[in-house]
Amino acid sequence: MKLCRFGEPGEERPGMIDHNGDLRDLSDEIADIGHEALTDLSLDILSKLDPMKLPLIDHPVRYGPCVTGIGKFLCIGLNYSDHAAETGAAIPEHPILFHKATSAVVGPNDDVVMPRGSTHTDWEVELGVVIGKPCKYVTEEEALDYVAGYCIVNDVSERHFQTQLTGQWTKGKSCDTFGPIGPWLVTRDEVGDPQNLAMSCDVNGKRMQTGNTSTMIFTVAQCISHLSQLMTLHPGDVISTGTPPGVGMGMKPEPVYLKTGDVMELAIDGLGTQRQEVRADE
Amino acid sequence: MKLCRFGEPGEERPGMIDHNGDLRDLSDEIADIGHEALTDLSLDILSKLDPMKLPLIDHPVRYGPCVTGIGKFLCIGLNYSDHAAETGAAIPEHPILFHKATSAVVGPNDDVVMPRGSTHTDWEVELGVVIGKPCKYVTEEEALDYVAGYCIVNDVSERHFQTQLTGQWTKGKSCDTFGPIGPWLVTRDEVGDPQNLAMSCDVNGKRMQTGNTSTMIFTVAQCISHLSQLMTLHPGDVISTGTPPGVGMGMKPEPVYLKTGDVMELAIDGLGTQRQEVRADE
Repeated sequence: MKLCRFGEPGEERPGMIDHNGDLRDLSDEIADIGHEALTDLSLDILSKLDPMKLPLIDHPVRYGPCVTGIGKFLCIGLNYSDHAAETGAAIPEHPILFHKATSAVVGPNDDVVMPRGSTHTDWEVELGVVIGKPCKYVTEEEALDYVAGYCIVNDVSERHFQTQLTGQWTKGKSCDTFGPIGPWLVTRDEVGDPQNLAMSCDVNGKRMQTGNTSTMIFTVAQCISHLSQLMTLHPGDVISTGTPPGVGMGMKPEPVYLKTGDVMELAIDGLGTQRQEVRADE
Repeated sequence: MKLCRFGEPGEERPGMIDHNGDLRDLSDEIADIGHEALTDLSLDILSKLDPMKLPLIDHPVRYGPCVTGIGKFLCIGLNYSDHAAETGAAIPEHPILFHKATSAVVGPNDDVVMPRGSTHTDWEVELGVVIGKPCKYVTEEEALDYVAGYCIVNDVSERHFQTQLTGQWTKGKSCDTFGPIGPWLVTRDEVGDPQNLAMSCDVNGKRMQTGNTSTMIFTVAQCISHLSQLMTLHPGDVISTGTPPGVGMGMKPEPVYLKTGDVMELAIDGLGTQRQEVRADE
């Protein structure tokens, strides 16, 4: 099942994608794709609906973030063995955790706005995990039971802010618009094995990142289990699980960063696509 | 004006402290101490109420976190020159930023629960700043206009999780119950100059931290201005501005960490007191 939110920012309505790929309006069924919608019971009820009987939205719409009420936006760093090699970093012993501010969340096709003074803005296609029920001290074996679904995340990153402003990485990760998520929240039953998803990121039509979740250092289940030892994961929390090789910072012979007018296009098997235009803040 | 929230967890009601230090019920005036309550207009309306005409709450109550709907819990690290000296760290060039998960927030007198496996849980009394209106690219001079008020924060920290789990600091800062805030949100007009507030933290009746916000490396205004260059600060966001000397990690000849049954008591001039008992999670 593919759930989504559509409409203008702050006025999104819940939707579902039908078997033809068309958008159907879920407004009469649930209030929003938020905490209450993510429980197993709620997802089960929604799965019994006949999408073809829901109102068809046949005009172009903006897609919003595919889930609302995100309490925590947790990100795993350097979680692909091939990306870690690219950056020259050692393989970490545990998942590297940083926070992205929830105020950075935008829709999958919204503009990415480089903040004033930004000269090192970079792309990172990532598998996002949306938690469906409270989760603490869970084992790796049971961890995926707590997942409502998956989505694409672009973990947009300002490398200078991230590494040179004497902060922690969060400084370069939390800028407004640096967290496009969606277009869809694809439920875990439809995704199946999250460790075998091909993913890519193109910039201006050129393939920059090619990867597969099979090369994650810490699996989705391991990340959830580890984080749940530290804190309770709540419904609507998003975990972005790291990026494969091909970020701008790692380009040879010189790093490549985004500039006004650039276009990022991201894709993950079964999770749809994102497309963002880049501009500088005024 | 001293605003607060009282009642059982998740069922808190808004309150105000009157001139005698008694608790008055604000439920008939506003829904909660959340985003809408923090605007200049709302605070102005509340300030015109006669607290003595509000219902008196004359039975013991639990105080909840003094503000709800916290979108971001941002923390500044190593922000006191005397604390930086204590830890042996260099004076940072810019404010060090890390995130504390909002799921860590509890009331000022709730238990602090050490997560399983924790052996290095530590205290940090800090001045908390609650943002009152959206704030981006503000100068140091105008920054304090965006503050709704101030509160005490205990930036409880698991030092092993913070530094040894190959994450960023947030791993040791985000455990459940590691963010007591309150008891009151004291409005900025009542606090006046935030850079001259004495503060302390006692553990089991022994004074461990003694400090004053006058020794901050980066003032409240500088922190707000800096963060607002990176991201929009929204109403209800909390910024915890760093801790003075005397944390357990810095004790000589050996570091001292919390254990079950310990009691932390925190105070900041004009902002009230906190008291937490420590216990280990089962």
